[in-house]
Amino acid sequence: MGEATVKEKIKAMLVLKKYGDLREYLSHINGADIVLIFNELPEENIPVLFRLLQKDTAAQVFAMMDSDRQEMLIRGFSDNEIHEVFDELYVDDAADIVEEMPANVVKRILKNTDAQTRRMINEILKYPEDSAGSLMNTEYISLRPDMTVVEAKKRIRRVIADAETVYICFVTDSERRLMGLISIKTLLLANDDEIIQDIIDDTDIYVYTTTDKEDVAKAMNKYDLVAMPVVDAEMRLVGMVMFDDAIDVMQDETTEDIEKMAAIAPHEESYFKTSDIKHAKNRIVWLLILMLSSSITGIIISNYEAAFASHAILVSFIPMIMGTGGNCGSQSATLIIRGMSVDDIKLKDFLRVVWTEFRVSVIISAALAAFNAVRIMIQYGDAVLAAVISLSIVGTVILSQFIGCMLPMAAKRLKLDPAVMASPLITTIVDVASLMIYFSIATKFFNI
Amino acid sequence: MGEATVKEKIKAMLVLKKYGDLREYLSHINGADIVLIFNELPEENIPVLFRLLQKDTAAQVFAMMDSDRQEMLIRGFSDNEIHEVFDELYVDDAADIVEEMPANVVKRILKNTDAQTRRMINEILKYPEDSAGSLMNTEYISLRPDMTVVEAKKRIRRVIADAETVYICFVTDSERRLMGLISIKTLLLANDDEIIQDIIDDTDIYVYTTTDKEDVAKAMNKYDLVAMPVVDAEMRLVGMVMFDDAIDVMQDETTEDIEKMAAIAPHEESYFKTSDIKHAKNRIVWLLILMLSSSITGIIISNYEAAFASHAILVSFIPMIMGTGGNCGSQSATLIIRGMSVDDIKLKDFLRVVWTEFRVSVIISAALAAFNAVRIMIQYGDAVLAAVISLSIVGTVILSQFIGCMLPMAAKRLKLDPAVMASPLITTIVDVASLMIYFSIATKFFNI
Repeated sequence: MGEATVKEKIKAMLVLKKYGDLREYLSHINGADIVLIFNELPEENIPVLFRLLQKDTAAQVFAMMDSDRQEMLIRGFSDNEIHEVFDELYVDDAADIVEEMPANVVKRILKNTDAQTRRMINEILKYPEDSAGSLMNTEYISLRPDMTVVEAKKRIRRVIADAETVYICFVTDSERRLMGLISIKTLLLANDDEIIQDIIDDTDIYVYTTTDKEDVAKAMNKYDLVAMPVVDAEMRLVGMVMFDDAIDVMQDETTEDIEKMAAIAPHEESYFKTSDIKHAKNRIVWLLILMLSSSITGIIISNYEAAFASHAILVSFIPMIMGTGGNCGSQSATLIIRGMSVDDIKLKDFLRVVWTEFRVSVIISAALAAFNAVRIMIQYGDAVLAAVISLSIVGTVILSQFIGCMLPMAAKRLKLDPAVMASPLITTIVDVASLMIYFSIATKFFNI
Repeated sequence: MGEATVKEKIKAMLVLKKYGDLREYLSHINGADIVLIFNELPEENIPVLFRLLQKDTAAQVFAMMDSDRQEMLIRGFSDNEIHEVFDELYVDDAADIVEEMPANVVKRILKNTDAQTRRMINEILKYPEDSAGSLMNTEYISLRPDMTVVEAKKRIRRVIADAETVYICFVTDSERRLMGLISIKTLLLANDDEIIQDIIDDTDIYVYTTTDKEDVAKAMNKYDLVAMPVVDAEMRLVGMVMFDDAIDVMQDETTEDIEKMAAIAPHEESYFKTSDIKHAKNRIVWLLILMLSSSITGIIISNYEAAFASHAILVSFIPMIMGTGGNCGSQSATLIIRGMSVDDIKLKDFLRVVWTEFRVSVIISAALAAFNAVRIMIQYGDAVLAAVISLSIVGTVILSQFIGCMLPMAAKRLKLDPAVMASPLITTIVDVASLMIYFSIATKFFNI
């Protein structure tokens, strides 16, 4: 099923005004695909098409659209249509949308949602952007510990239509304090007269409204949870985070890490949604910083230039030694940063990491030094040159890997972002360090 | 609840042989946490502790252990214990374990599992490592289209104990061909006498046993699915992939991408599980390649050195110009590679990407050139030098961003891995290109 064909069929039906066929046709396409198709259609077609969608699909599609198009649609909606769409939306999606809209649109939305939805939207909006509170959905199913299984099932059937998931239900006491979880599987396997309290899963897995959303995603991944309960400071259940939202958080955080490692300022928008000026701004800050630092390297080199005049060959090895140092440093940094972000490496492993990197750097530097010694002997037949280059490589590789593994862990220890410590910054430090090693070894051996 | 305290408590109970207390204590800890605690305890404690776990937790913990420890436990198990553990395991986890064990252990395992489990394990093992088939679980719930809701519920209750999820059930015809999905929520909301066929979700979302597991994970993320059906070439349902396994695939693929971007060979094991020799091997291949290519840069520089002798100041700008080119190139490459891997950028966007990067590179190069012109005028008062450096920066930035965005997309077009094209390789190409630009501009302006 190629997207092009689907798009063309939809366009053709629009032209022929075959709305009945179009409604039927759209009802067989998943909402996630409809959004992709809509994105490729001209804006003026969207309101007509949107009104042909089934109610639940319409809400799903609406939640996934760009905020520009959401706003365009809302401005064209009647009060009743706003009510219908926002009634069908999950409240966390509704809150995300409200957050992006201008004040007059927000006013119209809140006027046309019922009191309970409005209350829930406001509840979510009051939490800081990166917290579990802002990510959670308040449409969970809660059960009481003293219910029987049959009572629980009755309650579930009553509230299920509005809940985002029935897979996991939360058990709370009379003061709404979280007591544990119960999966629908456990409920279906249980006998009708069993008491919830006796079949509850009471391991204490939960996050606070203030927990950083990255930590929420990590915990959900660790415990393989479909939904994670969110509690306030008094342990009262206020919402849950769904697995699909957690996956999005993980992906966004990874993208941020990758961009930081490549010296790009983190940003929210996708590639094509980012303006040229914003693209330039995201990249230019680090470019300027790195430009200044490489000027320092340049000055060091030109200072030694005169000294090297008698041994011109020495200059040609500068890029190789600096480059190898930079590469070794960023290899180590990358392994450590990624290891920490998937919880494979912890801060307390610091000495173990340094020791591992030291052993590995000894092997690598020995191999690279031997390779270069042989190459130089064959090419130039100069044993002193071979010794200088080999020794410089050993020193550079060992030092670079040490800096590369140490800086990200130090950054994390100081509650800074380890990813910023990666390639570019480390390369800069390593560049200077490896030049110093090279020059001091060379001047000693050649008596410059 | 610090892990140290838990570990210490467990150790204390072991010393005092308080096995009853220990069993009770462990029953309140989640399996994912128990594995972490076990990993920090000496191997000789594990068999005793493992036997104190509840049956389902024991299977969960067993599935998450290192294969070394799994093997150690299996070797100590009685035939009956093997049967109990493997009966409780999800069959995809069982297949993963069997795959890692030596032949004589595999023989004992298969001897002590029942015929159906054995058949399912063999089914999964026959698919290639990176396919949906190798990732799937065969313990799904399937319903028939002509069942009533009450019949479906009866069937679910009968088979639920062995199923990994009840959240999504699959509807198949008499020849096991997939007709659609139905969520437990839809079932619970439906009336008892409704027919499954009428409430089925028939959008055609599925993957083949041969589908690459990365594509499976992407599709599940796109459709926010808890379980994705897996069919064979005849559209017969053979299994499902669960969301938690898909998340692991996504994380592993991302780690691989990040490592490739930092010139590290992709590997399976975690940081501390990798031997020193393997660590060195993973890094040394690219280090050698990059070392050779930076030797080329070195030769170019030393060739021009004589020419620059009359204008020594020119040499000190080499690191800055090469560095800026490399940084711009890897910024572009990173944005494009990540954009492609989250499906934000597609191959057909090629011209749009090149055009965007060109516009952005004009802004960036203008800003950096202006900055350097001012700096050089203040520092050296040399207008010709300012012009040479500024023009070189403009040329280098524009060319680097072009190379940086073009190479990863070309790699993808040729079905090569875009991530390998990132930073190190691009840096090398850009290094040479920027040196050429700088030297040709400099020689022209200074009449060298």
